[in-house]
Amino acid sequence: MPTLTEIRYEVADGIATITLDRPDRMNAFTPTMATEVVAAFDEADADDAVRVVVITGAGRAFCAGADLGRGGSTFDYQAVQDARLKAGGSIAGMPRDLGGVVVLRIAASVKPVIAAVNGPAVGIGASMLLPADVRIAADTARFGYVFTRRGIAPDGASSWFLPRVVGISQAMEWVATGRVFDAAEALAGQLVSRVVPDDELGATVRALAAEIAENTSGVSVALTRRMMWSMLGADSPWDAHRMDTRVIAALGAGPDAAEGVTSFLEKRPPRFTASVGDHLDLVDPWPPVPGDVTPPGS
Amino acid sequence: MPTLTEIRYEVADGIATITLDRPDRMNAFTPTMATEVVAAFDEADADDAVRVVVITGAGRAFCAGADLGRGGSTFDYQAVQDARLKAGGSIAGMPRDLGGVVVLRIAASVKPVIAAVNGPAVGIGASMLLPADVRIAADTARFGYVFTRRGIAPDGASSWFLPRVVGISQAMEWVATGRVFDAAEALAGQLVSRVVPDDELGATVRALAAEIAENTSGVSVALTRRMMWSMLGADSPWDAHRMDTRVIAALGAGPDAAEGVTSFLEKRPPRFTASVGDHLDLVDPWPPVPGDVTPPGS
Amino acid sequence: MPTLTEIRYEVADGIATITLDRPDRMNAFTPTMATEVVAAFDEADADDAVRVVVITGAGRAFCAGADLGRGGSTFDYQAVQDARLKAGGSIAGMPRDLGGVVVLRIAASVKPVIAAVNGPAVGIGASMLLPADVRIAADTARFGYVFTRRGIAPDGASSWFLPRVVGISQAMEWVATGRVFDAAEALAGQLVSRVVPDDELGATVRALAAEIAENTSGVSVALTRRMMWSMLGADSPWDAHRMDTRVIAALGAGPDAAEGVTSFLEKRPPRFTASVGDHLDLVDPWPPVPGDVTPPGS
Repeated sequence: MPTLTEIRYEVADGIATITLDRPDRMNAFTPTMATEVVAAFDEADADDAVRVVVITGAGRAFCAGADLGRGGSTFDYQAVQDARLKAGGSIAGMPRDLGGVVVLRIAASVKPVIAAVNGPAVGIGASMLLPADVRIAADTARFGYVFTRRGIAPDGASSWFLPRVVGISQAMEWVATGRVFDAAEALAGQLVSRVVPDDELGATVRALAAEIAENTSGVSVALTRRMMWSMLGADSPWDAHRMDTRVIAALGAGPDAAEGVTSFLEKRPPRFTASVGDHLDLVDPWPPVPGDVTPPGS
Repeated sequence: MPTLTEIRYEVADGIATITLDRPDRMNAFTPTMATEVVAAFDEADADDAVRVVVITGAGRAFCAGADLGRGGSTFDYQAVQDARLKAGGSIAGMPRDLGGVVVLRIAASVKPVIAAVNGPAVGIGASMLLPADVRIAADTARFGYVFTRRGIAPDGASSWFLPRVVGISQAMEWVATGRVFDAAEALAGQLVSRVVPDDELGATVRALAAEIAENTSGVSVALTRRMMWSMLGADSPWDAHRMDTRVIAALGAGPDAAEGVTSFLEKRPPRFTASVGDHLDLVDPWPPVPGDVTPPGS
Repeated sequence: MPTLTEIRYEVADGIATITLDRPDRMNAFTPTMATEVVAAFDEADADDAVRVVVITGAGRAFCAGADLGRGGSTFDYQAVQDARLKAGGSIAGMPRDLGGVVVLRIAASVKPVIAAVNGPAVGIGASMLLPADVRIAADTARFGYVFTRRGIAPDGASSWFLPRVVGISQAMEWVATGRVFDAAEALAGQLVSRVVPDDELGATVRALAAEIAENTSGVSVALTRRMMWSMLGADSPWDAHRMDTRVIAALGAGPDAAEGVTSFLEKRPPRFTASVGDHLDLVDPWPPVPGDVTPPGS
């Protein structure tokens, strides 16, 4: 992992916590932050000691969105590209939307992801929440899919994720108005599953992460995460049935299935031992990486 | 636009209001009404002064469904076709379901659509609500997907829209029973986002329309609407990511992105100037028009 | 129909009730039960007197999941297969996940399905609820998608169904934790549409079934069920529009459409007469059966 300058990465009790860490800028999103978040998810995926990833923000914000330090030309990617070329960068096409680079990396996480929304999550800060499996908000959190107020369009593949998370009607109301809304509206609109007092957010998130880490097989959770998300794109449940038959047959003959049933029958906590990395090829990675994508920053 | 006889069309404060206007027939749906609604959406799309479209009903109903003046042969399209031929009409195949013609036209609206459900919305009157982005109901509204009680099947492509708006289980309960239900059940089932007293419906809808018109870029909203709805049919978020990269790059170099960021930093209302029509080709129309469709009424 | 040993099948008042019937084992799921449930749905589909199917459990449970009588090797399908071969069974490949066999058969039901969740529904017992159209729970019901606690992966095509029924975020929280949750959490998470006192479950379900049976055309309901579920897999609403045009044209010229409109205008209950079996080929079966599936138990 590179030296981290704009995020923090810590592992404790099976939980990798990724903290967006530019509190004086409300954790505004930059290319450096994007690169570091991708690296942190690579690290969490490779570490069998990590069962759950939590993403949160330092200070009073989650992420205020793209850093607007370049003012009116913030989203002028051609100008960004020109600047990069002047600085000696490569010439290959328009750079990918960096919000999408991060969002697709979170979506591909092998470990389940909990977003702990500790304060304002706006723009890419709001898009970044969507590939998480669960979102829990402090009562001080605020949210905004503000792209239409900035004269651009939704970033971070949120046109794909937001309607799947909250439904097309709620999604359209939030993006068409560009409104900034509070935690109560986020809860009513099913963007977050729970709202808790600010000082209980950490404990609530840790309890949920522990519920996963202490009771489940890491192999099972990793494969289930791939199965569930990938089946969102399948036209027929027969695709799931074929996958189930294959995956359950493979896992059913393994040590975690024996331990799972035995520990249940013996009414004791399970001690799962199978290694996540050894079983990942049972289910194709999700989202499937297309062959025609210019790599980030090239 | 043709001379309107069964709807009204008015533009004020950036809002085009389409009013179904056969109050003595509870705004029952006819081929003439269908043709006029399509023409009104064409007009709203072409008029840069229109930021939001509101659809509502005159008098105490939204739309009571297909006009049943032909009694038991109302849905006998072959008989309708025969009658049309006797009157000198053309011979080309079975006419398209006219409810679907209207619903697909609303779905293709460039401007966001708010349905102001002022009273009963039944049959095609209920189907017509679904391609709107937001539905707000008066407390006197009622709803019914009554097709199974009439011995036919859901019209207006509602088999596609209804499960996406309210979920497959709620959709199945409403269509399998054909039940007529009140505004409270519509709210609980997430068919409408808000229920307000009858005399506050107009003001509530206008306030939401103004929230869009006063704060956002029309170009951004139009492209976002196409992106969100079209991504409902995409299997992978990579489709969204490629689209984001292209659209944000194009908009980011334009005047609305500069104004959006600058006005935000200067803490003043934005003055967006880009023309919607000039930017629409950045995202393909939605829904995509297939090549094999018999035009309506031919 | 085979002689039933692990379920009961009864028809009364247009309702076929399928009761999982191993109360001393909390109705734990077995290959015999799977075969009998499939046979019962075949029977209900073929019987025009059946308008609605209700599935429930005998005694205090709905279904406690796979019978764990084989302990740690319960999910070792290869061992199961070996045992079957020793007993003289055929050699053809790995048997299909039997949970999926049942779930796909329920999904293909011609008649609408109501799940009456009278007690714990765990594992395949919880997966089996998902292809029902409506789920109503007794306040004593509990639910658990516990696969990750048993060291396996979701069965019964639940990776396809669960996110479509409750949304991807709620689905991921339940499968990642493997938590067993009560009826209140199921209601909040929209897994069930209603929770009623235990002693009111039967009457509530019968009232809903009667609402369907007494007011609607069986042909309309059967075709609508196929249309709604199959359109979940369609990328564009034009697919629905073409289907609508064809189906409404065919039904509109038939006796149930005439009776539906006439009875409505005469303000009297309808008397529908069309036979479901005669009209099913208007809409392709759902889910579509692929060509490459090894039949169950072969």
